[in-house]
Amino acid sequence: MQITVLSGGVGGSRFIEGLLRTKGPDDEVTVIANTADDISLFGLHISPDLDTVMYTLGDGIDRERGWGRTDESWNAKDELATYGIEQAWFGLGDRDIATHLVRTMRLQEGRTLSEVTAELCERWQPGVRLLPMTDDRVETHIGIDRDGRREIIHFQEYWIRLRAQVPVEEVVVQGVQDARPAPGVVEAIRGADLVLLPPSNPIVSIGPIAAVPGIREAIAATPAPVVGVSPLIGGGAVRGMADQLLTGLGIELSATGVAAHHGARSSGGLLDGWLVDTTDADQLPALEALGLAARAVPLWMTDAGTTDRLAEDTVQLAHSIGARR
Amino acid sequence: MQITVLSGGVGGSRFIEGLLRTKGPDDEVTVIANTADDISLFGLHISPDLDTVMYTLGDGIDRERGWGRTDESWNAKDELATYGIEQAWFGLGDRDIATHLVRTMRLQEGRTLSEVTAELCERWQPGVRLLPMTDDRVETHIGIDRDGRREIIHFQEYWIRLRAQVPVEEVVVQGVQDARPAPGVVEAIRGADLVLLPPSNPIVSIGPIAAVPGIREAIAATPAPVVGVSPLIGGGAVRGMADQLLTGLGIELSATGVAAHHGARSSGGLLDGWLVDTTDADQLPALEALGLAARAVPLWMTDAGTTDRLAEDTVQLAHSIGARR
Repeated sequence: MQITVLSGGVGGSRFIEGLLRTKGPDDEVTVIANTADDISLFGLHISPDLDTVMYTLGDGIDRERGWGRTDESWNAKDELATYGIEQAWFGLGDRDIATHLVRTMRLQEGRTLSEVTAELCERWQPGVRLLPMTDDRVETHIGIDRDGRREIIHFQEYWIRLRAQVPVEEVVVQGVQDARPAPGVVEAIRGADLVLLPPSNPIVSIGPIAAVPGIREAIAATPAPVVGVSPLIGGGAVRGMADQLLTGLGIELSATGVAAHHGARSSGGLLDGWLVDTTDADQLPALEALGLAARAVPLWMTDAGTTDRLAEDTVQLAHSIGARR
Repeated sequence: MQITVLSGGVGGSRFIEGLLRTKGPDDEVTVIANTADDISLFGLHISPDLDTVMYTLGDGIDRERGWGRTDESWNAKDELATYGIEQAWFGLGDRDIATHLVRTMRLQEGRTLSEVTAELCERWQPGVRLLPMTDDRVETHIGIDRDGRREIIHFQEYWIRLRAQVPVEEVVVQGVQDARPAPGVVEAIRGADLVLLPPSNPIVSIGPIAAVPGIREAIAATPAPVVGVSPLIGGGAVRGMADQLLTGLGIELSATGVAAHHGARSSGGLLDGWLVDTTDADQLPALEALGLAARAVPLWMTDAGTTDRLAEDTVQLAHSIGARR
């Protein structure tokens, strides 16, 4: 079975770990990762979501932090701060820097992001085929109101430096309208048996992937059922930081709000099915009214057991949708 | 008094330390550093000689190694090796990387190498005005014979990866013919009271500086005496690695050989005076025959005492030349 996952960083990676532990021996997983949170800092090309997926599945991630390398040191970052460099807010670990150096060097040599990702994965052996959503440069910028003045900043600055604690007026996924899906991306969606959306941020993770011209069309056209997991439990994001981002864009802070944002495939949206937390079971009728096959299951991925269970529930809902057709 | 020093990395830095400890309170030192051993690696702009001078005089150098940062860690470099990256031979310390990141970022922002150097020196406070020889890109490449095949490699690769243990057929200072002296360089030479050449490599440190169009002319025209210190003691280089480089280019492995390579100002060369080690005192007549004021003094900079003494001897020889005129 071919399973294709559209993924952001931390939540997506954890979900995919569960999927890999519970999938059948012949199932193959392709991950299409968001690259709109990529950033150029100090001349380095940094791809946070690709790296988080790669490090997590390759067992190089710092599990407590959820991002960056295990056994990390921060000497370069400390020195940047000593130099008084403003961008020292970025979490640039010494081991992590090596990944950025390899990527930057290869891109300067003329390789594509897909090719570099494949090279990096030779080391990490993530157990999936990891594809960037596009080889073209796409960057999510956030329009914020800072003391009454409109300012456009990179998503990373909003997320890390401002800790997403500033009202959002606008999200612009710069360059996405001219981006082309990376090699294999459209085929992985159209040729999939299941397409899964892990609990990733709908605006800055799943949104940019679906916004690459050709990807939304591939999702519309795939014969595979498309099933997502709500990144919201109760009235807030699981990792807690996305609330201002979502409300600023008029998305209702609930599992149903996010599902409505994605939309049902039957009405031109992304989803056939949607999983919400058991505590949100009261939303099932509203979700069905949106045209979605919905189910309430435990969404917290607190350990391997709960994570595996969620992956199984997701695959199961997808199968039941597939069988119904 | 204005003292201008043309410097490479390790030997030059040590000499300048002695100069700073022994100079008069009103003496000002300008250092014009070689940038021809600069290298682009992984997209980073690395300036080894500028950094060695800056770290040494700013007390950030690893004194045992002679280059790179004190209290350094090597996690990024280890990771590059784990990725199987060929260029992991370069000594890229984690703290050191921050300097390269700042430099690379600023150059990409459109600043000049002079401007970046000044910014970095705000932190390091080296006690000298540190100028790159040029803001233009110049790179020393070495033509070697590898198993009967001619190969052109970057000086850093020759020096670090091959440990300079391969016969040299050619040295090309790429780009130098189109380079312009950095702002202040010509003025610092023409307006100096003394111009000093520390015991730096004549081919890959002093050579490229003098090869920048305008710098040799400034040395010819300055009213200041120009005095150098032999980098060779007996028949070999003090740091021992330059022998193949010098012999490959037909330079006799002796203090006189290097002096003859630089030449006397009176016959279109660089030098008025030349210091050799006391063990090389028998070469004084040959040096005087070249038209140089020569003196034999202890050249080994084994500690602060011997280093300071050498700086004083150098300044003294320069003064005696100045007085004679």
